[in-house]
Amino acid sequence: MAKLKIRPLDDRVVVSPLEAEQRTAGGIVLPDSAKERPQRGTVVAVGPGKLLDSGKRAELAVAVGDQVIYGKYGGTDIEVGGDDVKVLRESDILAKVVE
Amino acid sequence: MAKLKIRPLDDRVVVSPLEAEQRTAGGIVLPDSAKERPQRGTVVAVGPGKLLDSGKRAELAVAVGDQVIYGKYGGTDIEVGGDDVKVLRESDILAKVVE
Amino acid sequence: MAKLKIRPLDDRVVVSPLEAEQRTAGGIVLPDSAKERPQRGTVVAVGPGKLLDSGKRAELAVAVGDQVIYGKYGGTDIEVGGDDVKVLRESDILAKVVE
Amino acid sequence: MAKLKIRPLDDRVVVSPLEAEQRTAGGIVLPDSAKERPQRGTVVAVGPGKLLDSGKRAELAVAVGDQVIYGKYGGTDIEVGGDDVKVLRESDILAKVVE
Amino acid sequence: MAKLKIRPLDDRVVVSPLEAEQRTAGGIVLPDSAKERPQRGTVVAVGPGKLLDSGKRAELAVAVGDQVIYGKYGGTDIEVGGDDVKVLRESDILAKVVE
Amino acid sequence: MAKLKIRPLDDRVVVSPLEAEQRTAGGIVLPDSAKERPQRGTVVAVGPGKLLDSGKRAELAVAVGDQVIYGKYGGTDIEVGGDDVKVLRESDILAKVVE
Amino acid sequence: MAKLKIRPLDDRVVVSPLEAEQRTAGGIVLPDSAKERPQRGTVVAVGPGKLLDSGKRAELAVAVGDQVIYGKYGGTDIEVGGDDVKVLRESDILAKVVE
Repeated sequence: MAKLKIRPLDDRVVVSPLEAEQRTAGGIVLPDSAKERPQRGTVVAVGPGKLLDSGKRAELAVAVGDQVIYGKYGGTDIEVGGDDVKVLRESDILAKVVE
Repeated sequence: MAKLKIRPLDDRVVVSPLEAEQRTAGGIVLPDSAKERPQRGTVVAVGPGKLLDSGKRAELAVAVGDQVIYGKYGGTDIEVGGDDVKVLRESDILAKVVE
Repeated sequence: MAKLKIRPLDDRVVVSPLEAEQRTAGGIVLPDSAKERPQRGTVVAVGPGKLLDSGKRAELAVAVGDQVIYGKYGGTDIEVGGDDVKVLRESDILAKVVE
Repeated sequence: MAKLKIRPLDDRVVVSPLEAEQRTAGGIVLPDSAKERPQRGTVVAVGPGKLLDSGKRAELAVAVGDQVIYGKYGGTDIEVGGDDVKVLRESDILAKVVE
Repeated sequence: MAKLKIRPLDDRVVVSPLEAEQRTAGGIVLPDSAKERPQRGTVVAVGPGKLLDSGKRAELAVAVGDQVIYGKYGGTDIEVGGDDVKVLRESDILAKVVE
Repeated sequence: MAKLKIRPLDDRVVVSPLEAEQRTAGGIVLPDSAKERPQRGTVVAVGPGKLLDSGKRAELAVAVGDQVIYGKYGGTDIEVGGDDVKVLRESDILAKVVE
Repeated sequence: MAKLKIRPLDDRVVVSPLEAEQRTAGGIVLPDSAKERPQRGTVVAVGPGKLLDSGKRAELAVAVGDQVIYGKYGGTDIEVGGDDVKVLRESDILAKVVE
């Protein structure tokens, strides 16, 4: 993937979704029948964190390069430099995948 | 169950649901007719806890290995390494089961 | 009722509902025609209390053994060791009954 | 009315509704045509007050014996020792009546 | 109007609505066609103010005798000692009228 | 416009809407087809500001004489001394117009 | 674009949308089929920031001249001096574009 050209705001995270084949190889299969199908992808950009009442920002729990699982209906799909990516809020991310 | 490969975020908890037979043996029967059927399972992974306004995280009240009862419609079903697990928020958990 | 095997979380309370006959004998009759019929039962387990922003837990106003009145549509019905019980939040409890 | 046998929780108040005839004699007539008809009654029990974030409880603005006006659709009707009473939250009470 | 016999709670205000003729004479005409027709009246009683988190009460911005404009659908109509009055929350009051 | 006879409460603002012709002359044309058509007008009265938790009031960002743009569906239309004005909350105002 | 004549309030941002052709040339293509199509534009004016409980304003994360991506359904379209612009809240902005 080419150098990412977008910088998410607040607690937003940009994820590059894994292809279906990759996902099967990685050992995590996401059932087709589930009403809200979770999705897996790689974090390619993170925002500065959510602004707290104190004026500070909450540190994000995910970093660039993390493999993450997220709900299907969260976020917005955009294309950057020919790549399809998804802009999510951190709260839309269910879990990190560790190999 | 194989070594779990996912790390839930915030106050999320990963539960491995008990099979119907196990549940009956365990002495807790969950009625089929209930509109929101509670479910029973074993906690297999817990997140770091919900982020408080103070910047600290609230300690989770459940730990890996706990038997828990939770509402049927909370959470997201995923498959990790061949096992079906459920990602819940701690607030979806009604009670711990102690034998 | 056998030794209760579940421990509710947060401000949840487990109530063993009184049978219809018991309720009449106890002097409190709950009208059939009311749209949201209140119910009466005995508290058989209480959670540690709701987690406050300060990190402490709010003490529950009901204790094991209390007779309570609660709304019909709150809570979740489960069966523990052959007994039907109801898991409620403390805020679903309207009042304690004192004889 | 016999000695009340219930103790409301939090900011709940138990009111014994006035009969229609009493209300007319008291000088306050509540119009039949109003969509949300207010009701009048006597406070027969009060809770300890709403729990504040500080851990203290907010003092109730009504006391046992007060005549109050409240909205028709708030609260829950129950029967205690043969008397019909209503369990309301303090915020459902519009005003006190002073003679 | 006779001595008012009701004491509103919290930030509630009791208003005696102006008759249609009075309103025209006062120079403010409220259009019939407006979907949420504002109304004009005289404040006849005020509550102690909304309870703040600090335990103090917020001072009301209106006082007995003030002419006020309020939305048609807020509040509850009641009759006190033969007079039709309206019980509103202060936030339902749009503006004070000054002559 | 005659001396305004109303004093808005809290963070409310009274706006005198510009006629359609004036708006075109002013260089800002608001499209007819937009679902929520913004409107332009002159501020003729402002409230004391929203009451904060601290007991102070937040200073308003608009002042009498400001030209403002606001959403069509916010606020309440009233007539004061023969003039049609609109009572808005400050948050319904999108922007100030500076020439 | 001529000198902008409007000053947004609070955390509002005025964006001048890019034409479809510009967007393609810029390397970011936004899919037509997406239900909530994101949009790209240039920030031409920013408000003073959202008012915090402390009475201070939160600094905006975008500045005049920034290229931004935002959801299609947020904000209000207006025309200023012949230019079509969009008034958004900062939270409607997904990301900044950096070349």
